[in-house]
Amino acid sequence: MKNKIGIADTCFSRIDMAKFAIDVIKKNSDAQIIRYTVPGMKDLPVACKKLLEEEKCDIVMALGMAGPMPIDKQCSHEASLGIQYAQLMANKHILEVFVHMDEAKEDGDLYVLAKNRTEKHALNAIELLKGKNALQKWAGQGKRQGRDDAGPIKVKYNRVC
Amino acid sequence: MKNKIGIADTCFSRIDMAKFAIDVIKKNSDAQIIRYTVPGMKDLPVACKKLLEEEKCDIVMALGMAGPMPIDKQCSHEASLGIQYAQLMANKHILEVFVHMDEAKEDGDLYVLAKNRTEKHALNAIELLKGKNALQKWAGQGKRQGRDDAGPIKVKYNRVC
Amino acid sequence: MKNKIGIADTCFSRIDMAKFAIDVIKKNSDAQIIRYTVPGMKDLPVACKKLLEEEKCDIVMALGMAGPMPIDKQCSHEASLGIQYAQLMANKHILEVFVHMDEAKEDGDLYVLAKNRTEKHALNAIELLKGKNALQKWAGQGKRQGRDDAGPIKVKYNRVC
Amino acid sequence: MKNKIGIADTCFSRIDMAKFAIDVIKKNSDAQIIRYTVPGMKDLPVACKKLLEEEKCDIVMALGMAGPMPIDKQCSHEASLGIQYAQLMANKHILEVFVHMDEAKEDGDLYVLAKNRTEKHALNAIELLKGKNALQKWAGQGKRQGRDDAGPIKVKYNRVC
Amino acid sequence: MKNKIGIADTCFSRIDMAKFAIDVIKKNSDAQIIRYTVPGMKDLPVACKKLLEEEKCDIVMALGMAGPMPIDKQCSHEASLGIQYAQLMANKHILEVFVHMDEAKEDGDLYVLAKNRTEKHALNAIELLKGKNALQKWAGQGKRQGRDDAGPIKVKYNRVC
Repeated sequence: MKNKIGIADTCFSRIDMAKFAIDVIKKNSDAQIIRYTVPGMKDLPVACKKLLEEEKCDIVMALGMAGPMPIDKQCSHEASLGIQYAQLMANKHILEVFVHMDEAKEDGDLYVLAKNRTEKHALNAIELLKGKNALQKWAGQGKRQGRDDAGPIKVKYNRVC
Repeated sequence: MKNKIGIADTCFSRIDMAKFAIDVIKKNSDAQIIRYTVPGMKDLPVACKKLLEEEKCDIVMALGMAGPMPIDKQCSHEASLGIQYAQLMANKHILEVFVHMDEAKEDGDLYVLAKNRTEKHALNAIELLKGKNALQKWAGQGKRQGRDDAGPIKVKYNRVC
Repeated sequence: MKNKIGIADTCFSRIDMAKFAIDVIKKNSDAQIIRYTVPGMKDLPVACKKLLEEEKCDIVMALGMAGPMPIDKQCSHEASLGIQYAQLMANKHILEVFVHMDEAKEDGDLYVLAKNRTEKHALNAIELLKGKNALQKWAGQGKRQGRDDAGPIKVKYNRVC
Repeated sequence: MKNKIGIADTCFSRIDMAKFAIDVIKKNSDAQIIRYTVPGMKDLPVACKKLLEEEKCDIVMALGMAGPMPIDKQCSHEASLGIQYAQLMANKHILEVFVHMDEAKEDGDLYVLAKNRTEKHALNAIELLKGKNALQKWAGQGKRQGRDDAGPIKVKYNRVC
Repeated sequence: MKNKIGIADTCFSRIDMAKFAIDVIKKNSDAQIIRYTVPGMKDLPVACKKLLEEEKCDIVMALGMAGPMPIDKQCSHEASLGIQYAQLMANKHILEVFVHMDEAKEDGDLYVLAKNRTEKHALNAIELLKGKNALQKWAGQGKRQGRDDAGPIKVKYNRVC
């Protein structure tokens, strides 16, 4: 039976992030995609939970964009906590893909960042569906979404202590 | 059977926000409206949950106004987290429509802002009742409530990376 | 059958706030009062939940005083979040009546503030027991507890937008 | 049947706070004591919940010490919220007895503070087991743990407003 | 029957912390190890809960690395709160082993810190499986993970107050 991947996205976002995710999922898996569009970030947690519980999705991506002001950080914090509880209540993963408008200096950069982050997390979603050890090859490798990987720390001797 | 939309509002607010919501809902849908007035913001989460669970509302709007001081931000944060949990426990949407008194420089502006935000979210509530894809046409379009839309980011080439 | 109103208060508070609440409730209703005294603010949430669930109170008032330091704000934040969850788990209201020691410049003012806030919320508790619309007459009227009402915003024309 | 008092403490603390609590409980009650030692503060909430639910304790004391840095305040905040939820899930009290290393200027003071706070809360635990009104005689009396009581606010006339 | 220890780790971390934990557990116990690798910190709470509930682990270690910016502190706070709720829902311990990139001035130090913290907490995990009193010998001894122990406070007289 095909896997089901849920995609929750927002009208608040200035970029159609869902399109990035859908393109990657279609190219790299035969999973069924169920999309759910809500007004803003704080509407994502319950939308994700409904995708997991009512639509029986195996995993969900929560795609959101946060404004640049302090009150926007408070909003994204509330949305993030909601996503934490939603996962624990459903016992399934929700990959939080949030872009903060102050992460880039101009619109073009923000677009590139949002695309990169969403695409990499779409691949993460596909991997997580394969099992607990599918991502183990990248464990501790300093992987980043949205920008280049930080990479692993190089230590001269295998054991420094 | 008619949809039921709950409206929870407060005595603390300096503007009768419920009136804005009720006007829009009556003009644009035949949903039944159930209203619940509480003292302040922090009384909204449980009021919303009761509207969803005891009054069987399909969706609820939580209308509140927050003061301008740091302690007021803490209060709105607590109310917002309560609204997050209430949604997850009831598996239904609560649209949070909060106006912060420091968002506008004078009363008239605050009134306009509150009216605009409440009316747009009333329309969002009606759309969400239609299904998961009713708002998809606006996904990633930079929609805002309370002020003008930010609009989508324009990128010169369809794909910049 | 008589309503039951729970009153949870603390030894930390420098003012016997419960007395204010009890006086108002006795004068304005025939509700049965059940009181529960705990050491401090952070002990209030579970005390309130026990009043709602084990003592079958219909509503509870949580009376607390917070110190003036940053760590005290953190404590009151934790207590407030506990009160939020307690309400959502019990599906009943807990009116949070917190006084912060930095709200007044001297003890006499703090006393007046605490008395005013507690008494007004005791009246709110009585109103909430009457039903969802008992407070509707005050909706959007800028009501305040502890100090004078802010009042509603006056807009020159009934509709400014 | 004897009451059971749980005591959860940590290896992180620089003071054996459990000893203070155990001494006071033994002198002032015949309650059975069940102790549970965990690495640090953030391990306390689930330890307390296990004491309440698996060991059937009637009340628990959570004894912890927090470091002086901002990240330590974040940790104690997380531990405190965990303790809030643990209480609400178990419907029993957990007395949080936290000492912050920046509350005292030198080690001797910190020791005195920790001892005073723990001993007073041990007495509070014993009182709470007696019932909802056992602490009522101290309600609004400005009681403090760790330092001297603040005492009640003195108002010249019985009623100032 | 052998104990089961879960190890949840991330691709975000720049150090393979799981290796440190696995080495220590293998040397010091015959527990079965079940590993689960996720993209980042905020994916750890539900991964840990699945290890506890679906894989029947007796205890879990949550290994994560946090970036150095304010938004990273917000992320680690959200992950920590998720870990708190996961523990309370499963009634089992999750040892949070988080390394913050701003705890060390250069990569080598961070590596040493991460190794030390992970190894000490792996030993804590083994002790906690032995029972409530296994760690009691270290109670109040100022134990630290990641750096040297702070040690217990020395007071000149056995009782200073």
